[in-house]
Amino acid sequence: MAEAHPPPDSKWWGWGDPSRRVELSETARAMLRDQLGAAQPAERVGLDQVTLPQARPLPAAVTGIVDEDCVQIDHEQRLRRAAGKSYPDLVRLRAGRLEAAPDAVLLPADAAQVTALLAACTREGVAVVPFGGGTSVVGGVDPYAGPHERLISIDLRRLRRVEIDPVSLVARLGPGLRGPEAEAALAARGYTLGHFPQSFEYATVGGFAATRSAGQASSGYGRFDDLVTSLTMETPVGRLATLDTPHTAAGPSLRQLALGSEGVLGVITDVGVRIRPAPEARRYEAWISPDFASGSELVRSLAQADALPDITRISDEAETRVSLALAGTSGVKKALFEAYLRLRGRHGGCLVVCGWEGERDSVERRRALSARVLRKGGGAVLGEAPGRSWERGRFDAPYLRDELIDLGYMVETLETSHTWSRLGDLYAGVERALEAALRGQRTPGIVLCHLSHAYRDGASLYFTWIAARRPGAEIEQWQAVKQAASEAIVAAGGTITHHHAVGRDHAPYMAAEVGETGLEALRALKHRLDPAAVMNPGKLLPD
Amino acid sequence: MAEAHPPPDSKWWGWGDPSRRVELSETARAMLRDQLGAAQPAERVGLDQVTLPQARPLPAAVTGIVDEDCVQIDHEQRLRRAAGKSYPDLVRLRAGRLEAAPDAVLLPADAAQVTALLAACTREGVAVVPFGGGTSVVGGVDPYAGPHERLISIDLRRLRRVEIDPVSLVARLGPGLRGPEAEAALAARGYTLGHFPQSFEYATVGGFAATRSAGQASSGYGRFDDLVTSLTMETPVGRLATLDTPHTAAGPSLRQLALGSEGVLGVITDVGVRIRPAPEARRYEAWISPDFASGSELVRSLAQADALPDITRISDEAETRVSLALAGTSGVKKALFEAYLRLRGRHGGCLVVCGWEGERDSVERRRALSARVLRKGGGAVLGEAPGRSWERGRFDAPYLRDELIDLGYMVETLETSHTWSRLGDLYAGVERALEAALRGQRTPGIVLCHLSHAYRDGASLYFTWIAARRPGAEIEQWQAVKQAASEAIVAAGGTITHHHAVGRDHAPYMAAEVGETGLEALRALKHRLDPAAVMNPGKLLPD
Repeated sequence: MAEAHPPPDSKWWGWGDPSRRVELSETARAMLRDQLGAAQPAERVGLDQVTLPQARPLPAAVTGIVDEDCVQIDHEQRLRRAAGKSYPDLVRLRAGRLEAAPDAVLLPADAAQVTALLAACTREGVAVVPFGGGTSVVGGVDPYAGPHERLISIDLRRLRRVEIDPVSLVARLGPGLRGPEAEAALAARGYTLGHFPQSFEYATVGGFAATRSAGQASSGYGRFDDLVTSLTMETPVGRLATLDTPHTAAGPSLRQLALGSEGVLGVITDVGVRIRPAPEARRYEAWISPDFASGSELVRSLAQADALPDITRISDEAETRVSLALAGTSGVKKALFEAYLRLRGRHGGCLVVCGWEGERDSVERRRALSARVLRKGGGAVLGEAPGRSWERGRFDAPYLRDELIDLGYMVETLETSHTWSRLGDLYAGVERALEAALRGQRTPGIVLCHLSHAYRDGASLYFTWIAARRPGAEIEQWQAVKQAASEAIVAAGGTITHHHAVGRDHAPYMAAEVGETGLEALRALKHRLDPAAVMNPGKLLPD
Repeated sequence: MAEAHPPPDSKWWGWGDPSRRVELSETARAMLRDQLGAAQPAERVGLDQVTLPQARPLPAAVTGIVDEDCVQIDHEQRLRRAAGKSYPDLVRLRAGRLEAAPDAVLLPADAAQVTALLAACTREGVAVVPFGGGTSVVGGVDPYAGPHERLISIDLRRLRRVEIDPVSLVARLGPGLRGPEAEAALAARGYTLGHFPQSFEYATVGGFAATRSAGQASSGYGRFDDLVTSLTMETPVGRLATLDTPHTAAGPSLRQLALGSEGVLGVITDVGVRIRPAPEARRYEAWISPDFASGSELVRSLAQADALPDITRISDEAETRVSLALAGTSGVKKALFEAYLRLRGRHGGCLVVCGWEGERDSVERRRALSARVLRKGGGAVLGEAPGRSWERGRFDAPYLRDELIDLGYMVETLETSHTWSRLGDLYAGVERALEAALRGQRTPGIVLCHLSHAYRDGASLYFTWIAARRPGAEIEQWQAVKQAASEAIVAAGGTITHHHAVGRDHAPYMAAEVGETGLEALRALKHRLDPAAVMNPGKLLPD
């Protein structure tokens, strides 16, 4: 059993390590001004200037369950659990306008205290928001109390156990472990989990499970829901624990029920995951494809030939162009890229990033297999330097977002997925909807997309949009664009989320996603496991 | 859209094609007599001599939904849906003692008729057993009406649609397609599903989904639940349909809820599955490992090095010995095997069967990778002839069981799984329990085991036991042994079933499997989707 130290707190008003900035070059700023028009830089208030609603007193039956110093009611701690990291979250935080906040933050010591808290909150009618890293970009930790008057945030940072079964290559991880902590504890024993979503630095194991997170190397290591072998979830009516056997045919999968439950059924307190020996070798490369359509076909060929690199992502023409200009987004330097292109007599094209990890032999063997398919499909290799550059910047995008917001831009992302045969229509539909909605807001924008998380039957699409913000109307502006994109996804038959989860933002689209009978099934589960409806109100299920 | 012809009906009193027998040699019979003592050959009555309870009349509101000739109430058709293919099922059929049977067999033409039937049965209080191939070995199609007086069998054989998306490599399959029909329809277009459980010849696509079936080549193609991309299930309160996107993070997985639901929540009417190009090459080989313990380690090495063949199974010492004696069980000829052993100066050992399928290059490349690990772990190759021999006999075991039952033996199988670190204890515990229980019945038996369906974190164990039957007390004898083995599985923390499903036989162990909270979750779902509790009473959930 190992226990690592928690990472430093994130910026309260933005993303990540407060000492770190990913700055935009003057050229990049000029390009944005040129394409998006003038934007009014965004101010932000000081921590003390943020107004929170008065904390309501909580029953001693609830607060008495944890140690006295594990009940936090001070301004900063409540503020830090009052929002996630979506664009509207950041807008509200920077403006100091929070309409809701937890009445207290409770830090249970173990699963037994979680159980006791849920039972007490059920009896007392206190809403509960389970809190891991607070990195939700879909309103997953909104302090919305639903029908209740009081709300607590249950912060799981004290549940950070690490137990390793080296024979079965399985680890039991506490939900409060952040990505780097879990990796450090595993690395100390020679292992890796291999789960590297963009939120890696701050997101937690419990959050990965509760939201069906997918890492950048999901083709190699598996999405988080693929990695999970067992789960324990405390619910208001008792403990749900699945066996840790590698597979079972004993009925509907309760593991798959707890995965993605987003805190509305209970609190995940233990996660069994498959681990791997830490990779002996890593190879990251950039390739180029003539255009996004043929590049997507290239990725399909890789997936269907079982030749997918562990990391595979292809940017569309716009993302390739913009990410080269905003050096740091993809980490691929423009000059370098263009030099390569000249060398090969090409202009334009789409950037493909590939990565292989594992034993040296395996990396070389699989790289050769992928390269054969890439070349056959019209890809040209740019080399390792831009690949390594991507790797160095792989967690930078949310830092860059803070810079863009500072400069006065709205910047947001969304993701979906579909089968290969319908992916092109989905891409066109969402892009068109985003562009039209941005124009409708009188803020024509840049719409970028990459294809990642490829499967034999399809892939995910990840969109980013950037536009000048509408000062004072940021939330309405965002809402209009988000709604247009979501409706386009539904119209094309895509999923409302490939790996960001549902939260509050996507809850209105769950009827389209799972149908009325599906909703009824989820509601029946919710009602049985959370009879007082205290668990994370307003998330996942539409009201 | 293709539609293939249905295969011939199975033997009503046993398994498979009536024109086919897998006979035991005189040597094999002698070995059994020698080891198990004298057994009293089992008689079987004629079809007309089987007594069924009188069919109760059904409301016209139910029978009127399908065409007149799609309501079958004759003796043979009722009899054919009155039991599955477990040992106790066959004992009862052969003795002509069936205590229950459907009052009628209804054959809906499409999903809309299924919906209408479920709604009508809910209103009228008529129990429903969904029926595919009728190959359950765990009482999954027992015509048990629960709280109701009348029961119908809904036979899905008319739902046999095949639609292929060649770009996404996905097929939509009707639930009534039997294994060979689905494969034939796919093969005609150059594809394969790659799902070959031992029940392949008679089991259906709907059954594969409803029971989380696992095929012999699951390491290569995936278990059936891995292959499924989308599902439609008609429930008494409406249609549950999941999107066909390759992945979603939109909440708990409803696909994983319908998978394994064993007809207790609804009837699966459409299954989207990943398909692959039909393999260009197939290579099956036998290897030998000094003993089962080191052979299991060998398979673990393969799995953890990502070097698993598409098919990997290792028999323990007893199964190796017996399957060689009962030529046909594994299809590996004894003389051939022994010749190989002599050639390599070995005696005894455990048989390992490996198979690779796919493009010629891929087969050779992956075979070389596996062979390196196998050799390093002490395995010795026996060659392709015994591997091909295994392949020819891969669906023979249930035919052989009929022969053994004819001769007077009880023969039954069960399966479980666990992590590698606990697999040895599970193996020892179940073997001990089976042997002790058989001795307790005064019929000491042979207990055989193989390890198959290996994963990075563990594997399944598949046990077979053979003993002289106790004439007139066959069911009690079976029950005592089954119970002892099941309790040993629970004590060792294994799953009560890796791929046979729960049915009625394993329902008593579901509390140990999923806990009380897990049971409550499943019951809440059942209650919401099947409020009149008409769907497959007594299966999956304990009463």
